[in-house]
Amino acid sequence: MSTPNGEVHPVATGPAAETVAKHQDPQDLVFYCAWYCPWSTRTWVALEEKGIPYQYREANTFHEDEGLNRIDPKASVPAIQYKGRALRDSLVICEFFEDAYPGTTPLLPADPFERAYARLWMDYVTKSVIPAFQRLTLSQEPDKQHAMLDELIKAMRTFTEKIKGPWFLGEQFSLVDIFIVPWVLRDHVIAQYRGYSRAAVGPGWEEYTERLVNRESVVKTQSLEEYNAEINHRYLRNEPQSVVTRAARTDRSSA
Amino acid sequence: MSTPNGEVHPVATGPAAETVAKHQDPQDLVFYCAWYCPWSTRTWVALEEKGIPYQYREANTFHEDEGLNRIDPKASVPAIQYKGRALRDSLVICEFFEDAYPGTTPLLPADPFERAYARLWMDYVTKSVIPAFQRLTLSQEPDKQHAMLDELIKAMRTFTEKIKGPWFLGEQFSLVDIFIVPWVLRDHVIAQYRGYSRAAVGPGWEEYTERLVNRESVVKTQSLEEYNAEINHRYLRNEPQSVVTRAARTDRSSA
Ligand SMILES: N[C@@H](CCC(=O)N[C@@H](CS)C(=O)NCC(=O)O)C(=O)O
Ligand SMILES: N[C@@H](CCC(=O)N[C@@H](CS)C(=O)NCC(=O)O)C(=O)O
Repeated sequence: MSTPNGEVHPVATGPAAETVAKHQDPQDLVFYCAWYCPWSTRTWVALEEKGIPYQYREANTFHEDEGLNRIDPKASVPAIQYKGRALRDSLVICEFFEDAYPGTTPLLPADPFERAYARLWMDYVTKSVIPAFQRLTLSQEPDKQHAMLDELIKAMRTFTEKIKGPWFLGEQFSLVDIFIVPWVLRDHVIAQYRGYSRAAVGPGWEEYTERLVNRESVVKTQSLEEYNAEINHRYLRNEPQSVVTRAARTDRSSA
Repeated sequence: MSTPNGEVHPVATGPAAETVAKHQDPQDLVFYCAWYCPWSTRTWVALEEKGIPYQYREANTFHEDEGLNRIDPKASVPAIQYKGRALRDSLVICEFFEDAYPGTTPLLPADPFERAYARLWMDYVTKSVIPAFQRLTLSQEPDKQHAMLDELIKAMRTFTEKIKGPWFLGEQFSLVDIFIVPWVLRDHVIAQYRGYSRAAVGPGWEEYTERLVNRESVVKTQSLEEYNAEINHRYLRNEPQSVVTRAARTDRSSA
């Protein structure tokens, strides 16, 4: 559902709107988020998992956001302002939460080697799974879509082989799970328009993704699905309007 | 200088060869390195700065390396084997050193926000400076090289504006410095063939890069310049033969 003039809806809806309403009070940490942005979802889920106090600030990149421009002229979301200083990038921010809030639920293993292993797979999601997902979504040539779909399924299978269960690293829900979940939440788009199915990846993937999308922190940061329609269709027609997707159109990773 | 049959020289030479000779004994940490590889240099400089005991193992990606294939089928360098388990990727490995060797010289600030700030600029080097450097080097079209040179100089200037001096973060030599130095060491190639000069970036850059290339850990991990000629010319003709550079040729970041 788009706004009357075909714009991307300005604010979060549904469960996400309820979560936003609970995070209006001033805090040391101001979280600049775009409700539809998959990279913002990473950071948002991490905040909810860790129970860090934060003030939510909608920073819709399809509109100008003065606040965001002021804290960071590069103006991408997610961004945070912490005691007046700005940071951006989902990876940098999530690592910051681990370092700055040691008393909260850890989202990385304590053991140095296991941490490194987690970072390797976070990197794999960002550099292998997501670019394949983006290329398939943006592709306008049906004869190329088949090979792109195969490439994505292969990347997801490589990931699936390493899932220890119930979460990627085993019992600990971690940043690896958080890094992939935003694209799992959007896979119905490529299922409907690009021939993808979770079943084609395999049963391990089907079970894992089902658990992921039902995780409480994930559910409560999601808006109503119909409000994603306008933005999804822009992607499917390869007509996104934010800087990041312009980069993806030229086939470079936007992460 | 190439080997008689025009191959990339198989092993380190000069100061790097001396350093290799000192790191032959078995250790918990085995370091798989390609002597000419800029990402390997990052990891190598970090090891030297921290004084971590390591066993050097040459893993030239222009030749097959059985050892490297065995520890990691993705087989990129740098890689390490730590107590029998494998890790790859310069960023993942350098972060691992910080976590696994807490008693050694830190290469990231202790303060959580300052660490995040350092990671932001490490990321900037990898995603903005290096891809611009690679595109300029590989470009075969003189009419496009001018715009590419401008883009690189702009990216370097943005970085330069933030140098606190003497190192990027101030008094602490850090992973930010280590992440950019391998490309500074190679900039004479674009100076000779693509019209680049350090002076065009500005005096702050000239002073900083001069300090960087003379840092002891940097000097002792470098091979003799003439042995780079073969590989440099492959890049300049856009005829590299390793997977990473095939990726760069299609204009995607290889990092
Ligand atoms: N690498 C960034 C990517 C963030 C990103 O691309 N965000 C998009 C919105 S989904 C954005 O801010 N686009 C507007 C722009 O880049 O100007 C991260 O992980 O946070
Ligand atoms: N992202 C990696 C890049 C490493 C890389 O590209 N290494 C090159 C050699 S300079 C390589 O291993 N190429 C062979 C290959 O990828 O198969 C890192 O930071 O370590």
